Amino acid sequence: MLIVMEMNATPEQVEGVVQRIEEKGLKAHPIPGAQRTAIGITGNLGVLDRGIFESLPGVIQVIRVSHPFKLVSHEFKPTQTVVRVGGVEIGGRGLVVMAGPCAVESYEQTLRIARAVKAAGGHILRGGAYKPRTSPYSFQGLGVEGLEILARVREEVGMPVVSEATDIDVLDAVAEHSDIVQIGARNMQNYTLLRRAGRCGRPVLLKRGMTATVTELLLSAEYILDQGNPDVILCERGIRTFADHTRNTLDIAAVPEVKRISHLPIIVDPSHASGKRNQILPLSRAAVAVGADGVMVEVHDQPEKALSDANQAIVPDEFETLMEEVRLLASVLERNVPTYAAAV
Amino acid sequence: MLIVMEMNATPEQVEGVVQRIEEKGLKAHPIPGAQRTAIGITGNLGVLDRGIFESLPGVIQVIRVSHPFKLVSHEFKPTQTVVRVGGVEIGGRGLVVMAGPCAVESYEQTLRIARAVKAAGGHILRGGAYKPRTSPYSFQGLGVEGLEILARVREEVGMPVVSEATDIDVLDAVAEHSDIVQIGARNMQNYTLLRRAGRCGRPVLLKRGMTATVTELLLSAEYILDQGNPDVILCERGIRTFADHTRNTLDIAAVPEVKRISHLPIIVDPSHASGKRNQILPLSRAAVAVGADGVMVEVHDQPEKALSDANQAIVPDEFETLMEEVRLLASVLERNVPTYAAAV
Amino acid sequence: MLIVMEMNATPEQVEGVVQRIEEKGLKAHPIPGAQRTAIGITGNLGVLDRGIFESLPGVIQVIRVSHPFKLVSHEFKPTQTVVRVGGVEIGGRGLVVMAGPCAVESYEQTLRIARAVKAAGGHILRGGAYKPRTSPYSFQGLGVEGLEILARVREEVGMPVVSEATDIDVLDAVAEHSDIVQIGARNMQNYTLLRRAGRCGRPVLLKRGMTATVTELLLSAEYILDQGNPDVILCERGIRTFADHTRNTLDIAAVPEVKRISHLPIIVDPSHASGKRNQILPLSRAAVAVGADGVMVEVHDQPEKALSDANQAIVPDEFETLMEEVRLLASVLERNVPTYAAAV
Amino acid sequence: MLIVMEMNATPEQVEGVVQRIEEKGLKAHPIPGAQRTAIGITGNLGVLDRGIFESLPGVIQVIRVSHPFKLVSHEFKPTQTVVRVGGVEIGGRGLVVMAGPCAVESYEQTLRIARAVKAAGGHILRGGAYKPRTSPYSFQGLGVEGLEILARVREEVGMPVVSEATDIDVLDAVAEHSDIVQIGARNMQNYTLLRRAGRCGRPVLLKRGMTATVTELLLSAEYILDQGNPDVILCERGIRTFADHTRNTLDIAAVPEVKRISHLPIIVDPSHASGKRNQILPLSRAAVAVGADGVMVEVHDQPEKALSDANQAIVPDEFETLMEEVRLLASVLERNVPTYAAAV
Repeated sequence: MLIVMEMNATPEQVEGVVQRIEEKGLKAHPIPGAQRTAIGITGNLGVLDRGIFESLPGVIQVIRVSHPFKLVSHEFKPTQTVVRVGGVEIGGRGLVVMAGPCAVESYEQTLRIARAVKAAGGHILRGGAYKPRTSPYSFQGLGVEGLEILARVREEVGMPVVSEATDIDVLDAVAEHSDIVQIGARNMQNYTLLRRAGRCGRPVLLKRGMTATVTELLLSAEYILDQGNPDVILCERGIRTFADHTRNTLDIAAVPEVKRISHLPIIVDPSHASGKRNQILPLSRAAVAVGADGVMVEVHDQPEKALSDANQAIVPDEFETLMEEVRLLASVLERNVPTYAAAV
Repeated sequence: MLIVMEMNATPEQVEGVVQRIEEKGLKAHPIPGAQRTAIGITGNLGVLDRGIFESLPGVIQVIRVSHPFKLVSHEFKPTQTVVRVGGVEIGGRGLVVMAGPCAVESYEQTLRIARAVKAAGGHILRGGAYKPRTSPYSFQGLGVEGLEILARVREEVGMPVVSEATDIDVLDAVAEHSDIVQIGARNMQNYTLLRRAGRCGRPVLLKRGMTATVTELLLSAEYILDQGNPDVILCERGIRTFADHTRNTLDIAAVPEVKRISHLPIIVDPSHASGKRNQILPLSRAAVAVGADGVMVEVHDQPEKALSDANQAIVPDEFETLMEEVRLLASVLERNVPTYAAAV
Repeated sequence: MLIVMEMNATPEQVEGVVQRIEEKGLKAHPIPGAQRTAIGITGNLGVLDRGIFESLPGVIQVIRVSHPFKLVSHEFKPTQTVVRVGGVEIGGRGLVVMAGPCAVESYEQTLRIARAVKAAGGHILRGGAYKPRTSPYSFQGLGVEGLEILARVREEVGMPVVSEATDIDVLDAVAEHSDIVQIGARNMQNYTLLRRAGRCGRPVLLKRGMTATVTELLLSAEYILDQGNPDVILCERGIRTFADHTRNTLDIAAVPEVKRISHLPIIVDPSHASGKRNQILPLSRAAVAVGADGVMVEVHDQPEKALSDANQAIVPDEFETLMEEVRLLASVLERNVPTYAAAV
Repeated sequence: MLIVMEMNATPEQVEGVVQRIEEKGLKAHPIPGAQRTAIGITGNLGVLDRGIFESLPGVIQVIRVSHPFKLVSHEFKPTQTVVRVGGVEIGGRGLVVMAGPCAVESYEQTLRIARAVKAAGGHILRGGAYKPRTSPYSFQGLGVEGLEILARVREEVGMPVVSEATDIDVLDAVAEHSDIVQIGARNMQNYTLLRRAGRCGRPVLLKRGMTATVTELLLSAEYILDQGNPDVILCERGIRTFADHTRNTLDIAAVPEVKRISHLPIIVDPSHASGKRNQILPLSRAAVAVGADGVMVEVHDQPEKALSDANQAIVPDEFETLMEEVRLLASVLERNVPTYAAAV
């Protein structure tokens, strides 16, 4: 960490900062310059809150040199994390494809889509039982009934399922019925929910908030790991920008950045990133090519009757094409798309 | 609502959209054009989810013409909402100033600051007992002990207090000890929390999310009103942009926009918007001048010892200047800064 | 185009809008609704300025339904544009790779890098002679001397070159010495320069502005086509967002969007999009996978001695890997990476 | 400046950076830490390009501690710059109001509006003769005829005029006919134009680009001052964000930030910032309250007939109200709104 002093900072102010640093058991390295003094800090400061220096008299800026997180970093754990769920591996050489309807609407709908996903080679069934909706007047999901449908279809088809826990009240139910608990973008900084997810006994799929930096995404994952749950899968799903041709802007460069600094797997969700059906296949290809560990897409067999977000779902035929393209790309990128004999 | 068809949409596709509109009990108005057909919809569609049309074959775009909310709109309730709390009015001709420490750190600290705020003419004491922090390693607040400190200081000094409920677990405790329940920016789309806040029996201060549009802020308020709680105070606290000279970018134009379409009061929080002490006074002046119903600022008497976000707090002397400036501006803007005899 | 009236608009105001529409030789279709009236417009309105309606009394919103451009659209020209330059094709089945130093620094440097690029299979040499620099104190390029170096190297190595024209004063010189004239991101809305580029007799590489929407990019291309120059290559190079892990945010979804609505070729520049060497290979793969017609990357053989932006250049060894990866991806995506016998 | 080394940087790499620093005549201060080494640099490095260090082996980050500009900074010139034009002062205690039509449409229109502006107490007449338009099919301005109209009206009414130079071809004509040369937002990084404006013999009104940081705005001003022209007036006119309720987002906090670090005057343009007539008065009040040196607004007496951007103009009656509000605010903010006897 580096403290930059104001140009007219007094020697007493510099001394005050040095003292505060030493009070924290750290070492201060003042660098008197032509224009101003800077003070380097060394010692074990991985998790130090820089706010404690920012308000000291004479300080103009505090610059963090190390990452503010620890457990999620490559420096802490050099080997890549591989999450195993119902026989499926996420984060290894094999790519994972999660697919299914935005919302669970009925047993029949979910079963039909799950079979189509499975037949095409998809690995994990996604489906929302609790839907966080911008408007109180939109369809809010079937709730626990939706979870039970998912659990039945899971057994019937033989695929692990992922579903979103929208708050701490429903977390236990989601963890009971699903193989992976999803934390949605709007909840990425719901810290109570993150802590509970860290103790829920299931792998967690953590989606990046629409306005979160990569550092903030990793700090949110740190909350989960800090509670003893090492199985976190990150998900890039688009950020909010001025660009209006897609619903959000897929920040594809987040994938190599996460790979560079963290050992956690990361997948991409082109459905929510774009909100446009015609973008899902090209963005899935881009995700695989850039190095993601998989993709999560919405599939619906009757999008014109879907109860929510129909425009971001592809139909089963398109999903088959997507799987074929993912396989072709994997083949030239030293990865593969596994077929699991008896998942779940 | 207006449905825009693709350029090569078939007559059957147009007919399909018309049928779906009529199934919903609405009236369809096809407009065949030189390049493409559009279909106007009329009828009572205030709360219609446009997703149900977006995926119909041949549809390229669905354009909302009316607002997607109802209870919060001026069209629904033409008179301005005035929230009354412990004798203080928010949303009337009088401006309100909420001030206090970022986090409640101790009884003595809170009492000292509360007295300074009260002496300078501030109306409501703010203070966080539960702190949503980006990093799991930052100070997370005193919790229920902090709430009890706030409640004691409230009696001692005679000021209503506002404090944040970070999740549904702590909502009841916050509602019990505070006069106003704050929902923070990171929770603006935590719909379970919004619904509970709608039944908590206290006015709610709802902060705009860093990435939320004004429409989304009003939809979140709609969740609260929809549960029977009419007493919502909105708060503009900056949005996330590329501009890096302040922590967030204060979207000052959100104030006149909210005033134009909604009857709810709106205040401005320059501390979180800027994250810089030297911005707090000028931004407070701008907030009052643009038409906000008040401001909320952080005050700390020993910022160099504060446990969180010290750089966005002003000291009591600066707060006195702020109050003086707010009074002067109010005097030329047909508003005033009331002195309440016996608040609480 | 659709005109939306205010809720309390009078019949006279509606009539006023209808009259103005008819004055323009268009047809008005009023749609009286429960809450408000909307007025559809049909006729030949491809290039109509909506500003002429926005200020009419009673109008609240004007919604454009058609694209505001014409010449660049697929609807105007259904076949894909293929730009041919010195034997190289851009926009066809073959992918194009443009590579070279950020700035031309000397004859020797440029020649060495050009040979490395050529040897690895790159098609077009890039190099800046005029550098638009944020600071007046940064290296501003060699100017006409740089252009002459490029022209010599072009002959020596047998590769077409692309170089940026930073203003109308240097446009002729750039057009004389280069095969493709580049218009940089900061000049995307320099309309005088765009018009001159439309008459310069060379294909134009038009980079998207950091803050431009896809529609605005296409409108800027329209300026060039409107002057009679059909040979425009678009370039996505990142937009400015809050995300701080790369210099800009590569908006990879812009590529399928441009492909959907326009016939112009589009390439991707991962060097400027990311500003980070370690992102260049993964983003190049993503660009090819998403459907771009090629990539443009910075290559430098002594990045530690480069005079500008060294951190966004890869070394020749990395460029060889990039070419190999692009070839592998092309092979599974029904594209290829041509080898041109005698380009230039 | 501070160089941060990678965690596994070798002693040779650290030494390499130290050498490069010393080659530049500067002093290196290595700070070996627990996790990594940082190297402070001191000496006269105000205008040093950090790119020269970023690509050295082992370097992970280069952090600038000083401002990258010089002439525009308070540290270089502690006194506030006051620009004087035709008797009007900009940047002193008196506020300035610039007003007029978006585009000069005819002599009669310009004269009528100028008289209304003058009568209400406005100081400087604005009007565009050259209009940078997103679409090639929009009205592009009257060109030199517009300049001549402005010059005639200027004499007739007795007000200095400001008009935009859209490129270097028209700069001389604009400088000849106007008192202030405006550089528009889209040209803020047109460096050739900036340099010429630095030698044009007139004060320059430099508008912030939609995507520019405050630092970049000041660097662009530095280009002008560097050519010997000290008379630069900055203008905040909104940045591009996701917020869609106004055309751009007025970054009101840019004003105190510019005041903090620079001696140049800064005004605010609420017309372009919001693109909405109903925002112009409240945003003008906010601008004055936050500390701007004035405002620039669009006024049109027949907005329903305006040839461009009619929705962002107010009518003369509203302008009178605006002037009255500005005067009232100035009276409580230790500023004033001067009346100049015989401007021009």
